[in-house]
Amino acid sequence: MEIEMKRQVSDLKRLVAAICHAGGIPNEDAAMIADVLVTTDMRGIHSHGVVRLARYLDCIRAGGIKPTAEPVILSESANSIMASADGGLGIPAAMKVMRRLLDKSENCAISIATLKHSDHYGAAGHYAMMAAERGFLGFSMSNTCPLVAPTGGRAAAIGNNPFAYAAPGRKHRAILFDICMSKVAAGKIELARGVGKKIPTGWIITGDGKDTDDPNDYWRGAVMLPFAEHKGYGFATMVEAMTGALAMSGMMSGVHSWNTQPGRDADTGHCFIVVNPAFFGGSDAFRERIDAMIDELKRCPTVDGVAEVLYPGELEWRREAAALADGVELPAASESELARAAEMTGVDAHAG
Amino acid sequence: MEIEMKRQVSDLKRLVAAICHAGGIPNEDAAMIADVLVTTDMRGIHSHGVVRLARYLDCIRAGGIKPTAEPVILSESANSIMASADGGLGIPAAMKVMRRLLDKSENCAISIATLKHSDHYGAAGHYAMMAAERGFLGFSMSNTCPLVAPTGGRAAAIGNNPFAYAAPGRKHRAILFDICMSKVAAGKIELARGVGKKIPTGWIITGDGKDTDDPNDYWRGAVMLPFAEHKGYGFATMVEAMTGALAMSGMMSGVHSWNTQPGRDADTGHCFIVVNPAFFGGSDAFRERIDAMIDELKRCPTVDGVAEVLYPGELEWRREAAALADGVELPAASESELARAAEMTGVDAHAG
Repeated sequence: MEIEMKRQVSDLKRLVAAICHAGGIPNEDAAMIADVLVTTDMRGIHSHGVVRLARYLDCIRAGGIKPTAEPVILSESANSIMASADGGLGIPAAMKVMRRLLDKSENCAISIATLKHSDHYGAAGHYAMMAAERGFLGFSMSNTCPLVAPTGGRAAAIGNNPFAYAAPGRKHRAILFDICMSKVAAGKIELARGVGKKIPTGWIITGDGKDTDDPNDYWRGAVMLPFAEHKGYGFATMVEAMTGALAMSGMMSGVHSWNTQPGRDADTGHCFIVVNPAFFGGSDAFRERIDAMIDELKRCPTVDGVAEVLYPGELEWRREAAALADGVELPAASESELARAAEMTGVDAHAG
Repeated sequence: MEIEMKRQVSDLKRLVAAICHAGGIPNEDAAMIADVLVTTDMRGIHSHGVVRLARYLDCIRAGGIKPTAEPVILSESANSIMASADGGLGIPAAMKVMRRLLDKSENCAISIATLKHSDHYGAAGHYAMMAAERGFLGFSMSNTCPLVAPTGGRAAAIGNNPFAYAAPGRKHRAILFDICMSKVAAGKIELARGVGKKIPTGWIITGDGKDTDDPNDYWRGAVMLPFAEHKGYGFATMVEAMTGALAMSGMMSGVHSWNTQPGRDADTGHCFIVVNPAFFGGSDAFRERIDAMIDELKRCPTVDGVAEVLYPGELEWRREAAALADGVELPAASESELARAAEMTGVDAHAG
């Protein structure tokens, strides 16, 4: 039974690309979107995988995203790119700018790119990993519309601003860390609601500033709280400074995530930073030292019930390898959104 | 009574510099240490202020820090510096490397410096603020000896790796965020022990992997846990990758914080990154956008009992201004360590 629910990676990528193309997205961009979304599902981050596809198409249909827009380089230096996605899709714009940045990074100790007038770019970690796959240390971050209350506040004032970094090893593939700034992802609140469970206080705060353990309050104006109080708030602000203030994109309430209003765009901002270890102790030494760091972490004795200490990304690599071998099992929500996307574009979701 | 316990900023700086100099530290370096430590106390971060001075001297006396060492540039490019503090004091080495980096930053969109064979460099945020004071976005981070258990572990395997950033405004001085990776600072555990109070479970874990609410366990082999579980762990790993692996300094158990063993040094690593907004929307636009961001955060309605939302650093600026006007009031532990440092070096702690 279970085997029937799994989709082969190449089939799923082909399907996603076909849906994108039928939705008005050029072939090259469609392939990028398929690659980013399916890879994310393979890594088990289903909240940022193919479940998002239908919503991208919703925005395109409504005139809130331009499906054929090309990123525009606004200014450039030996180690920097300032670009605009021109109101287009976030994933292809981020991929193209990141590729250009990685070429610069061969000759620079550190380099940076910003992207404005962009949209949802999938999993932040995907772009950090593009750097790690070339032997670099990579950072990737994005702002979002306001979703999180600052410390002491009771309204969504700042984005859930994802932040990711990746560092390549040799024996171990790479450290990959990809988080957002709320205590828990909205999906966990939804999950608790679905099974009729209470949530711990501290996850969300009601619109009038009260603690609550009722997940339903999230759909009645409650807002997410940052992780570790002022620490999550401070990291959210850091990402906003890089992706909003520096990138000259929308900031705070000026970001319209999942924009469906024609005549404007989400104006999401991204920022990417790449460090080239060749300018320090050398690329090989860096990979070996990341391996050594991981080995030392994994030698740490564990608490009862935990088999081993994991390094950031380790679980994702295991899932990705399993998905490559056996196929990806999508959660019901992803399957149903995929079916909706296929229906919207007239693609047969069951065709290989 | 209270007024008598306050020290004027210039008096305190003079005293700290005199003690440093009497302890064998060259004049220029002594002034830097005085400036960094006293400024940190002015900002209310007493855990990283003059309370540290006697311990620096302990290390010097023991032959664990070379008081006259000068940082050595190991390699350099248009936008990077790789340096060694040569087993000297962390503060003067970090100040000198940061100044050199800031000069490079005038002509580069982004630049980076690493420093190895260093020691405790005071408050990470001090160096990030040096960048903000020149109109740049600044990042500062350092590793430490292992102090924190990775998620699932029950031993100190990774440092409490401080991380700071600063972004300049115009109306508002700057955003300044400076944290470490444990759930709470060790000082808070000490405070609870001092007043005989329990601590929340989740702050520390016993050496055999059990939850505990007894602060005394910290002195019986319990270790600190990272903030927000895997998030704090992942940020600690990020800092280790930048300051340990990249900087080619000591990593993990190879860092000997507060080293008193002659023939080796702490081999602490630091990393600094500076972004110049002139290469994006311009320096003025950046400052205005940071102001706008802060203004929007401050407009957020608050929970009961909270007068206003603060931006990261706001409290520190208020304290610094008050200290400049009225003097610095040092906690008892700082006063007693200052007295000890004065006694060690034969300086009159009460001389102006």
